[in-house]
Order: sequence, then C-alpha cells, then structure tokens
Amino acid sequence: MNNKTQVAIIGGGPAGLLLSHILDLHGIRNIVVERQSREYVLQRIRAGVLEHGTVQLLRQVGLGERMDREGLVHDGTLVTWGENASFMIDTTKYAGRPMMAYGQTAITEDLYAARDRAGGVVLDEASEVALHDVTGGQPYVTYVRGGVAGRIDCDFIAACDGFHGIGRQSIPASVLRCYEQVYPFGWLGVMSRTPPMKDLIYAHHERGMALASQRSPMLSRYYIQCDIDTDINEWPDDRFWEEFKARLPKALADTVVTGPTIEKSIAPLRSFVAEPMRHGRLFLAGDAAHIVPPTGAKGLNLAVSDVYYLSRAFDAHFNQKQDALLEDYSQTALRRVWSSERLSWHLTQLLHTFPNDTDFARKLRHNELLHLSRSEKALAALAEQYAGLPY
Amino acid sequence: MNNKTQVAIIGGGPAGLLLSHILDLHGIRNIVVERQSREYVLQRIRAGVLEHGTVQLLRQVGLGERMDREGLVHDGTLVTWGENASFMIDTTKYAGRPMMAYGQTAITEDLYAARDRAGGVVLDEASEVALHDVTGGQPYVTYVRGGVAGRIDCDFIAACDGFHGIGRQSIPASVLRCYEQVYPFGWLGVMSRTPPMKDLIYAHHERGMALASQRSPMLSRYYIQCDIDTDINEWPDDRFWEEFKARLPKALADTVVTGPTIEKSIAPLRSFVAEPMRHGRLFLAGDAAHIVPPTGAKGLNLAVSDVYYLSRAFDAHFNQKQDALLEDYSQTALRRVWSSERLSWHLTQLLHTFPNDTDFARKLRHNELLHLSRSEKALAALAEQYAGLPY
Repeated sequence: MNNKTQVAIIGGGPAGLLLSHILDLHGIRNIVVERQSREYVLQRIRAGVLEHGTVQLLRQVGLGERMDREGLVHDGTLVTWGENASFMIDTTKYAGRPMMAYGQTAITEDLYAARDRAGGVVLDEASEVALHDVTGGQPYVTYVRGGVAGRIDCDFIAACDGFHGIGRQSIPASVLRCYEQVYPFGWLGVMSRTPPMKDLIYAHHERGMALASQRSPMLSRYYIQCDIDTDINEWPDDRFWEEFKARLPKALADTVVTGPTIEKSIAPLRSFVAEPMRHGRLFLAGDAAHIVPPTGAKGLNLAVSDVYYLSRAFDAHFNQKQDALLEDYSQTALRRVWSSERLSWHLTQLLHTFPNDTDFARKLRHNELLHLSRSEKALAALAEQYAGLPY
Repeated sequence: MNNKTQVAIIGGGPAGLLLSHILDLHGIRNIVVERQSREYVLQRIRAGVLEHGTVQLLRQVGLGERMDREGLVHDGTLVTWGENASFMIDTTKYAGRPMMAYGQTAITEDLYAARDRAGGVVLDEASEVALHDVTGGQPYVTYVRGGVAGRIDCDFIAACDGFHGIGRQSIPASVLRCYEQVYPFGWLGVMSRTPPMKDLIYAHHERGMALASQRSPMLSRYYIQCDIDTDINEWPDDRFWEEFKARLPKALADTVVTGPTIEKSIAPLRSFVAEPMRHGRLFLAGDAAHIVPPTGAKGLNLAVSDVYYLSRAFDAHFNQKQDALLEDYSQTALRRVWSSERLSWHLTQLLHTFPNDTDFARKLRHNELLHLSRSEKALAALAEQYAGLPY
C-alpha cells in the first residue's frame, strides 16, 4: 500500500498527534505511523503537570475544552523538608503563569478524538517501520501493517517516537552528539482513585523524595524515590502509603487520602539530549531527542514546545515558502531543551538524596532549601524556570 | 609574665585585630596574641573585594577614612564566556549594595594603626601558644615570647587564628564536626603595579577561569585557574599575561595593562566548615572555623560578619549582662557561613572547568551562563547573594 503526504509523523503519542493536529489546522497533509495499538497508547500513564505555555497552546488549537473542565489549575507547588520547613513555588505570583494538573493520558484521548473528527490518518500497529533517504530530496517511510507492506512518500519526516524509537536511530552516529546522565535511584509511582492533596507537593526527606501529584478531582498520582533495584512486589499498597507519609511533615501526611492503587510502577531517572534535532529532511521532537528526569514535570511540556517550533516551521515552509524556521529548528528547540534539562537536573539534585552525597553536599542542599524559603529573589528565579520559559 | 584581660584574642590578622578594635570601642579589655611578626602579617596578600556590609561596618567603627579614599567602588562584576557572551552582576541595581575593591593588606595596616593609636596590646611573635581550661570558668592562654613564658587569664578566648591555628585544634574531635570539599585545581595569582581593568572580571573559558581584580588605582591582582601541581617557576610573567589574556574576550584582553609582577603565588581551593563555632568559653571566627574557595571573594567578608556577631555578643555579655547572643553565636554565624559556602561553591562550579566534567555538565554550565545573561530574575537572585546577605 502506497501513500503520499507532506509530513510523515513517526509516533502516535501526544507529540506526534499534536503535531498532526496542528499541521492539519495549517492545511498540511500528514500521516501518523504508530507501532502500538491505540488502546496501548491510551493506557500509558505519564506526566500530568502542564506549563501555562502548554495550556495556552492546547487552547489555541482547539484542545482546551475538556482540559479546562477537568484540569486542576494551581498557582504553585509546595516544597517541604522537615516538619516546619517549606516554601511555595508560586508561578502565578512570581512568573504570572499558573500551572495545570491534567494527565497526559487525557491529552492523548483528546488528541485521538480530534484526529478522528478531522479524519486524520493514524496507522497504528505498524511494525518494521523504517526511514529512507532522509538526506535526499524524496524521503519515504516503510512499514508492515496487518501483514501488508506499506510505504509513505513525503517531503519531511517528523520523528516523535520516543527515546527507543527508530527516529533518532536513523541518524548516523557520526553526526549525532549525545549527552547523558543517569541517576542512582528511581521513582516508585502509584495511581489511586482518591482525591488528591490540596497542593502539588515535593517533599525532601532524609529517606528520599516524595511527590504528591494530581490528575483530576478523583485521581491522584504519588511517587517516592526508591533504590534503582527495588522489587515492586515488595511494595504492597500499605507499605507504599506508610513510606510516602513518613516523608511528609506530619500535618500534611494526615491529610493524605489513601486507597487501593490502580497502577504501580518503577521508573528510572535519566537526563539525555541528542544534537542536532534535524538530519536532512528528518526532524526529531520530544523524547526522541531528549529525556529529562521527571522532577519538575518538564518532559511533556518540552515535547509540546518542540512541536510548536516544528509546526511553525512547516507552516512557514509549505504556506509561506520560507525555510528559515526549518533551518533554525534544531537550534531554537535545543535552547529551550537545555534550559529544561538544567531545571530538571537542578530540582533532582535539590529534592532527592544521593547515595554518594557527602556531608558537605547535604549541608549545601539544606542551605539552598532554607535560602529559597527566605529569599524572594531566589524563589522568583526558580519559579520563572519552573513555570516554563516562554517559547 | 602574667596578664589578665576579658577576651584573649588568638591571631593578629584582620579578624583578630577587628575584634580587638570593636571590643575596645565597647570598653571590653582584650589582648591579641599573634604567632608571626607584624611585618610578616602585613606582607600577606589576600582578598580584596568587600561586601557593602563589610564596608559599612568598617566605617561605623571608624576605619573607613583611607578605605573611602583609596578603595574602588564598583557596582558590579563582569562575567564573560566566549567572545560576545557576558553579563554584569550588578549588586547596586539588583541588591541596592555596591561592592568595594580594597585590599586585605590595607585593612590590616589600618587596623594595626588603629590598635596603636588606642594603645591596644598585640603580642606578636608569640610561639608555643596554647589554650587551657576552655570549658571551665577561668580559661587562660600560655605562650612564649622572646624566650619568656607568658600567660593570659581571661573570661573568654576568641580564636581568629586561621585554618591552621591552635584555636580549632583545641576543640576535641569528638565535639567537632567538619565538612570539607577540595577542588581539583588551584589559582595562580600575580600582583602588578599597573592600573586595573575597568571592571572586576571573571572569565569562564575552556582553558579555565581567569579573574581580573583590583586593589587600588595603580595596583592590580590577576588570577588564572591552574593545575594543582603547577610549578610556579614555569610561569614567567610573559607566559602568565599571555595565558590570562587568552581567556578573555579579545576586546577586553586588549585593554589589559601588563607589567612586571611584584608577587606570584599558587593557592589551592578548598571548602571547609567546622561546627560548632563555640566550645565552652572558646569562640572561633573567620578562617579558624571555615574556608571558602576564593571565587566570589567571601572569605574576608565572612570573617568580618563573624566578628560582628561575636563582638555584639561580648558587648551584650559584659555591658548588658545578657548571654543570649553568646549562646546563639555559633548558630547565627553558621547560617551566614553556609550561605557564603554555597555561593562560593556555586560560583566555583560555574566559572571553572573541571577535569572530570562530563559533556552534559559542560552543557548545563553554558546554559546557566546563558540563562543568567537573559533572565533578570536569575541575575537578581545571584547578585543578592554575591552582594552578601544582610547580617
């Protein structure tokens, strides 16, 4: 089966679907190729805290209706360490931008609904996806779907296929420069159908970090820092809740509404950036090009800003015959990527305990937390980055 | 020879002399004991950038006359990296507090002159200094001077005798907790009788940091980051100037006025804090309790704030019979110590190159420099700390 389109999009997660949606609004033909089934994609539980820039973009492209109904706007994120030590990263006060808790799963549902309404083509369960002639004038994508080989001829390929996808792997190692840092711990996360805590809370504790996040009025997401080799079978719900609450100030721990968890998983933490984000007619966006540790919830937001830059560049190419934005895409996107990488690294350093921490490092960390609780200027500087830098 | 006084001060450097001077103003009798000769002390070349709080304190205690005549007020410190990349840490703009370049050597001269005018007792060239009964009610100091044994009975001992002094060593290891970090490089510094550059400049360069500092209108201090095992004999003046200028943007390098150096030395970089800063009737101040790497020039300023807290506490004890400030001295001083330790560590990380830097770490550093050049909030937060937190 042969197809012809303007942009072949690899990956039907939020980045690929959002790019498809926006290109469609600009009248740019595109086809999405996804390895998994739609059901699988919609069951993945991922990030859930949106920068104001992400919220605004989703509204602008007509995807704000359910988000504004179900999402939880919040002005700030509470950071605690010790019983009576805390500060609020108030992004509304310090950066003029509130945050929104709204799950990636819900965004993906909204995107699939929008693609369906617009008659968008999403080829799911496509295996053996391969990219061809990306540095030539006529790239194409091949795949197998339902036992039938397919091919998409296109002007450009956008790889939104995640860290393990074929997109980045299609760029020769000789032109790709990768930057990476792994962290000596993971996050043990649970989802529960319980009302979330009043605030989004990061708790720094000598036992490790704990995070209370929100998805909707009756859906909560909680995490605790765990050893990298933690066996999830050793963490029944009771033990999780006990450990989670032990890392919070008592007054806050008493407000946690516990319940049976509906999902439990362990995620490693990694910082990763591949440069450049363009190779010939192939463009990378989102996790295909970069990974942040989840502290600060920048991953999805960064994918959205990549898609913004890339959709704007394709619009200029196809509709205004201007290629400057396409030429600058990698550089433009990477500037924002590195800022988010630095914030995510910084928050990870600040809020976790590290097995190789020296006493000196611990003292500096406590001093930084104390300083943030006393200095408006320090808090404003952090809040500006946490809120997400402007596009 | 037996003496009796209220406070025995160990160390006749700027911290000990300033404490002596201020105690004298409060009518508190004191004797300073110094191991070296006055000539030796006055030849030591050390820090030279004063926080506004330090400047104000020196003025308040009548030591501002020569400083205000010879010192160079500056609003900010220029940070450069690469040819056209820079930002100004403008402490006047962001923190309402200018800095002053005025050498520690000059301050020490001013202090000795003031002690002489007031008839202060400074026992220099005192060897075999030992502290006794510091946890009892009647501590005393013994020493040998000119072959004659001496003893000072006192109410309190203030150890201002530096990192290698007897003060901290007189506290049992079982009650002292030490925090330390060493850095894998040193600073090669020169002094020259040449007009300083217009600004105080920290240059980050892939060859390492360079720093242009100021002492007076015809006295300049320059540093370059060097390997820890650098042989100073391999660094004749010409090589130093060439390397220094190579690390600056060309337009700035062209403004450096070079000349024969009058001093050249290599200093290691170390972060160190001993807690607590009090043991019975013994109080530590300045380098005796803590060392910062020189980046940010916090060492002398921190000694001055220690002396401020300690002199205030002695005043309350002797003149108002109030001991709360003495009881709180260690905690109060340490809060400010740790803030300066963190800033010094942070600036050291930001401005140097480290032999074990990963590519990821290098990228984060460049992003932070870039962010500081673009974000008023980030620069304000840095400037507030660089200007020195309020006492």
